[in-house]
Amino acid sequence: MEEKQIRKLIEEGRELIRTGYDETDYSDYQTDQELKKQQPPLVKEAMTDNIIDLPKNFDDLDADRDFFSVIDRRCSHRVFTQEKISLLQLSYLLWSCQGIKEIRGRSYATLRTVPCGGARHQFETYLTLQNVEGLEDGIYHYLPLVHKIEFLKKLDDLKGFIDKSLEGQIWASKANIVFYFSMVFYRVEWRYGIFAHRVALIDAGHITENIYLASTALNLGGCAIGSVDGKYCDEVFGLDGVEESIMYAHPVGTISEADLEKEKDFYRFVKEQGL
Amino acid sequence: MEEKQIRKLIEEGRELIRTGYDETDYSDYQTDQELKKQQPPLVKEAMTDNIIDLPKNFDDLDADRDFFSVIDRRCSHRVFTQEKISLLQLSYLLWSCQGIKEIRGRSYATLRTVPCGGARHQFETYLTLQNVEGLEDGIYHYLPLVHKIEFLKKLDDLKGFIDKSLEGQIWASKANIVFYFSMVFYRVEWRYGIFAHRVALIDAGHITENIYLASTALNLGGCAIGSVDGKYCDEVFGLDGVEESIMYAHPVGTISEADLEKEKDFYRFVKEQGL
Repeated sequence: MEEKQIRKLIEEGRELIRTGYDETDYSDYQTDQELKKQQPPLVKEAMTDNIIDLPKNFDDLDADRDFFSVIDRRCSHRVFTQEKISLLQLSYLLWSCQGIKEIRGRSYATLRTVPCGGARHQFETYLTLQNVEGLEDGIYHYLPLVHKIEFLKKLDDLKGFIDKSLEGQIWASKANIVFYFSMVFYRVEWRYGIFAHRVALIDAGHITENIYLASTALNLGGCAIGSVDGKYCDEVFGLDGVEESIMYAHPVGTISEADLEKEKDFYRFVKEQGL
Repeated sequence: MEEKQIRKLIEEGRELIRTGYDETDYSDYQTDQELKKQQPPLVKEAMTDNIIDLPKNFDDLDADRDFFSVIDRRCSHRVFTQEKISLLQLSYLLWSCQGIKEIRGRSYATLRTVPCGGARHQFETYLTLQNVEGLEDGIYHYLPLVHKIEFLKKLDDLKGFIDKSLEGQIWASKANIVFYFSMVFYRVEWRYGIFAHRVALIDAGHITENIYLASTALNLGGCAIGSVDGKYCDEVFGLDGVEESIMYAHPVGTISEADLEKEKDFYRFVKEQGL
C-alpha cells in the first residue's frame, strides 16, 4: 500500500473521531425521530420457540462483591480452564451487561444496567455456550425484555466457529461463553440519523466494561475482542449484515491462578523485542 | 439535505461499524509497530510546574462498595446540588477510570483500571473542577503515571466554557468535575495503523462506564456526553486538533434524592409526544 493511501486512510480515521471541526451546515437536516416517523422495536423478537428461563436471584452467587477490589483486580484473561459454569453465573453476566431495569414511556426506551446514548440500546446479544450447567452446547440469543435466552442451534464445530469468527484468536474457543454483540443500525439512526454511528461505537465499550467487571466479581475471566469477522458471524447467526451486523465480541471462561504465567505468553514479544 | 446524500452518509456510518465485509487485500500493509518504528510516549508529560498530589488511600471513602448494588443503581444524573466534593473523591474517580496499575515491559504499555485495545491507552484526561476541597476552580490535566493532577489555568467563565464545550447542555455547568477525554491518535495508530480508529472509539466507552460506576459507588452522579465541541475544547486546553483532540466528556457532581423528579424533566417529551 502506498504511503499516500495510508495517510489518507489515517486522516479519514481521525476525522471519524474528531468532533466540532466539520463546518457543514446541517440546520436543514432532521432525523426520523424529528420527522415523527415510526420508532423501531426496542428489542428483536425471539426467532424460535426454544425459550429458556434464567434464574434471577443473585444473592447466593459466589462472588467478590467489593466494588473497589473488582475495579483493582480487573484484567484481561486469555487462558481458560474449561470447567463448568452455572446457569446463574451466565444469567448474572447477561443481566450486568444488557439487563433491562425499566421501560421509559409507553415503549420509548429501555433503561438498562449499561448506559447508551439516548437510551437507544442498539445492540442484540448472541452467545456461544459450552460447559454451562443444564444447557446444550451451541448458539443462543438473549431476550432482555423477559431476561431469558433462546437456543438457536447446535454447531457441528463450535470451537472452530469461535476461532474463525474471531480471526484466529484460538484461545477464545475454550471460553464457556462468547458474547457476540450485533448492532441494529436503525434503532440508533431513528434518533440520531447521520450522526448516529460515532457515538454508537462508543456505546459498545460501555457493555464490555460491565462484562469485564462482572466476570471479575464472579472470579471468571475474559477479554473483549474488536477483531471480529462480522460477515462470517452474520451468516452463522442468520443476520442480514445490512440492518444488523455482529461487531464486537467478549469471551468469558473459568480461570485459575496457576495459569497466570501462561497469560504472560501473550506478551512474550514485548520481552523478545526489548520493548 | 437531499435524501440521496442522507442515505450515503448513513451507509458510510454503517461501513465504519461493520467488520469482515471489506474485501480489500491488506496483506502488504504493515503498521509502524511492525516496521519497528519508535514507539510514542505512553503518556503526555506535564505541561506546567503546578503539580498537585492526590491522596490514594481509599479505605475511608464513604461509598456503597457492594458491586451488585452499584451495577443495579447506576443511572444517568443531570441535576447537581453543587455541594463540595473531597480531593479523595476526585482522586478515586481518576483512579477508577485511568489509573495505572503496572507498566508492561520496559516502557511498552500501561496496564490500567480500564481495558484498552492492545493496552494502547490513547487517551489523556483533562478536567474542569469547581467546588473541590482545597483546589482552585479551573482546568486541570491528569498525570496517570504518578497519579497527580496539574493545574492548567483559571477560566474567567468556567460554567460558560462547560456549557459551550458541551454544545449547550447547560445542566453540566453545575458539575463539580467534567472529564474531557482527548485521543492522542498516534499512540494507537503506531500499533494498529489504518485499522486503529474503529476500536479506539469503542475504548472510550470502557472509560466512561467506570466513571458511571465509581460515581454511583461514591453516591455522586453524572452522564457521559458524546456531543462535544472538540474544536473549541482543543483551543481552551491548548491541543492541536491534529495529533490530539477532545472527543468525549463526562460531568460528575453531587446529587440529591429529592431531585429525582427534576431528572424526569429531561424526558418530558416522551410523555408529551405520547411515546
